[in-house]
Amino acid sequence: MASEQLEQFEGAATIEKVASLCRRRGFVFPTSDIYGGLGSSFDFGHYGVLLNDNVKAEWRRSMIQERDDVVALDSAIILNPQVWVASGHVDTFSDPLVDCRTCKLRFRADQLELASCGKRPSKHPGEYSECDLTEPRAFNLMFETYVGALRDDASIAYLRPETAQGIFVNFKNVTSSMRVKPPFGIAQIGKSFRNEITPGNFLFRMREFEQMEMEFFVPPPDAEEWHRYWIDRRHSWHLDLGLRTSHLRIRAHEAEELSHYARATSDIEYLYPIGWQELEGVANRGDYDLRQHTEASGTTLEWVGHEERYVPYVIEPAISVVRSTLAFLCDAYDEEVVAERPRTVLRLHPRLAPVKVAVLPLIGKDAAMTEKARSLYEELRKTMSAEYDDAAAIGKRYRRQDEIGTPWAVTIDEQTIADGTVTLRDRDTLAQERIAIDGVRQLLVDRLG
Amino acid sequence: MASEQLEQFEGAATIEKVASLCRRRGFVFPTSDIYGGLGSSFDFGHYGVLLNDNVKAEWRRSMIQERDDVVALDSAIILNPQVWVASGHVDTFSDPLVDCRTCKLRFRADQLELASCGKRPSKHPGEYSECDLTEPRAFNLMFETYVGALRDDASIAYLRPETAQGIFVNFKNVTSSMRVKPPFGIAQIGKSFRNEITPGNFLFRMREFEQMEMEFFVPPPDAEEWHRYWIDRRHSWHLDLGLRTSHLRIRAHEAEELSHYARATSDIEYLYPIGWQELEGVANRGDYDLRQHTEASGTTLEWVGHEERYVPYVIEPAISVVRSTLAFLCDAYDEEVVAERPRTVLRLHPRLAPVKVAVLPLIGKDAAMTEKARSLYEELRKTMSAEYDDAAAIGKRYRRQDEIGTPWAVTIDEQTIADGTVTLRDRDTLAQERIAIDGVRQLLVDRLG
Repeated sequence: MASEQLEQFEGAATIEKVASLCRRRGFVFPTSDIYGGLGSSFDFGHYGVLLNDNVKAEWRRSMIQERDDVVALDSAIILNPQVWVASGHVDTFSDPLVDCRTCKLRFRADQLELASCGKRPSKHPGEYSECDLTEPRAFNLMFETYVGALRDDASIAYLRPETAQGIFVNFKNVTSSMRVKPPFGIAQIGKSFRNEITPGNFLFRMREFEQMEMEFFVPPPDAEEWHRYWIDRRHSWHLDLGLRTSHLRIRAHEAEELSHYARATSDIEYLYPIGWQELEGVANRGDYDLRQHTEASGTTLEWVGHEERYVPYVIEPAISVVRSTLAFLCDAYDEEVVAERPRTVLRLHPRLAPVKVAVLPLIGKDAAMTEKARSLYEELRKTMSAEYDDAAAIGKRYRRQDEIGTPWAVTIDEQTIADGTVTLRDRDTLAQERIAIDGVRQLLVDRLG
Repeated sequence: MASEQLEQFEGAATIEKVASLCRRRGFVFPTSDIYGGLGSSFDFGHYGVLLNDNVKAEWRRSMIQERDDVVALDSAIILNPQVWVASGHVDTFSDPLVDCRTCKLRFRADQLELASCGKRPSKHPGEYSECDLTEPRAFNLMFETYVGALRDDASIAYLRPETAQGIFVNFKNVTSSMRVKPPFGIAQIGKSFRNEITPGNFLFRMREFEQMEMEFFVPPPDAEEWHRYWIDRRHSWHLDLGLRTSHLRIRAHEAEELSHYARATSDIEYLYPIGWQELEGVANRGDYDLRQHTEASGTTLEWVGHEERYVPYVIEPAISVVRSTLAFLCDAYDEEVVAERPRTVLRLHPRLAPVKVAVLPLIGKDAAMTEKARSLYEELRKTMSAEYDDAAAIGKRYRRQDEIGTPWAVTIDEQTIADGTVTLRDRDTLAQERIAIDGVRQLLVDRLG
């Protein structure tokens, strides 16, 4: 690169740069792209899977494993359709749509500035008047399907638009089989589906997406206090895993933007390259859901203690895995010039990094070095995600690992053969320390915490 | 229990006993049961989620993390519908069904012995002649839905019936972004959906189920050798995690039972309480899928090396998470009488056990014991799934942990306060060793391997 190019290189993350890195380095691919794709749907490649898995593991660790008041659940994606009648989704989970009588396309009535008639395209963006539009109609966002051999109203079913309802309908199963009492939570990770009309912005809004939701059941008088507690806990989780304080803010919903079930909601917003957007919502759902299912099913969903009986309120922190992953990627993305050479680096928290350590023989054709390197690599991969790489110049191999966010690289060189030490390179500081090869595994285990 | 009851107690696992334990102890619940359920669909409770997660983690460790020739993938559930035309699923993935003109019910033509007319039920099972049956018609097993605002032939889409096709259509994405060359594999864990008409047998056949599939791409001349290799590797995996040798067998498919894409398939069968059934299939799919997608998409899916170019053959080990979990549960289920008291115990491999260790103060009301116990518990749960329990007599608390398969229990007693040692109880041998409280964590980490 010429020097003026190098100066331009060091820039902030954009959605395009992050998407390009993700495609090039095997994090994310457009779904079914050899068949022209499918709108707003993505497949995750090797490093994307490992990164998503780490995000989920950290959520599980913080929300379930390190607490004794939260249990796990994994409910089906296709539930009995009555669940969605009772929850209000069949009636109200919809966007207002208008049809164009000329081109037959549909648009969101609340986003007409994005509309453009397919047969008489406007020369000026935003001039949707050339479309011949119908009145808005409500369009339900749930995907429908049919269960069983018959296809009629009785066999209709829905792909869940949220995992939360699977938790509410299991309230009695959980309280009768587990040693729990309010305040306690039920946590679930799983796919949800929303048939959105105008999704977009890379991973930000997808038609199928994995959610991490936890419903925390509390005595009603304590609900506001627990609401504040969970907003604070979830905010800390994002910070602890490396998001910048200046890129996070908390915004309470105005009364008119609250969902039909919510008494109060605060969004934890992240400053994505496209602007401030919801990263996680923390809602006080009151007793809405348990009461709805009690009424619709005839099964009383309430807490029965020794001397008390009540319908708990529910505090719900809910986040999409991929929206979380996208925030971590954007925050970690960095470009810098080191020794007059550009490097792109993902400064991911080590616990989130897809690969923890790369093992590199300095000279890829040196039998003694490669043997020692293979042996160390095979030891390390039993405990953590590791890579072995003996192809290309060492600088190029370091850059490869920087781009996928690998926090540490171990290099085996001539001195290793002589005295059993290796260099440990730090992704962020580029510092290299010399340590004994026998101590590498324990050192990394300790640093990972 | 009276002594004659105790004698009857010690029995083999049955599906009913395993299902009853799973329901009682919060492993598995029927889906949406407050609304009357949904056929052959289940939700997983706390211990079920932890157990399934451990099964998946062991598969990932063995198939991806500890190898450098397999990469991960996570493709969408709803793919471009052309994928399923090319794969042959739209045309051929069906069961033959017949209708009864009297009761309007549908039955599988190849399982008419299970049919019974809803309006004129036979007095003798198997006498389906009272039904007035139509000729068999093919009924496709894929769930259909519509993507986007319009509902027409152009917007029809399918829930994937297998994860494998998501791998094949990403062949080029993976080979162009990752450092791989044949022989190499792409592995995926995810939900698949089959609209089966007569599912049943608890977890054995479910309409939505998680699969663990790996497609291993090899030079065609090496396909048979790799097929044998993967049958052997997968067989060992089940054994290493504790399934009994006598409960596993390998059965090669006859020519007439092969799927349309398969050159050869061997099932690893497990002796479930309902008899020998497929646990895992290992197929040689040849070059069928890559050629089909090349033809249908116009994108050439082949391996291009420095001096060679060919369409690889594919070896596919494919297993359902829950069918694997069910085998582990059935194999681990045991009833025995110890000191004239019955106990039910899940002898799960420690790596699979939902909870690794229970920390129990001998006297739940003793402040010194509970303080030490809480402190140890809070240290242990940072590294592994742990439980703290101070309620009920110690024998009852041991039994609780036996039923969910917890391999170790640590008891804090008076001697702990005096000399800092605890007892470590082994689930299987019931042996109790006295060890230093400071060494508990490392000892368990070492035993977990």
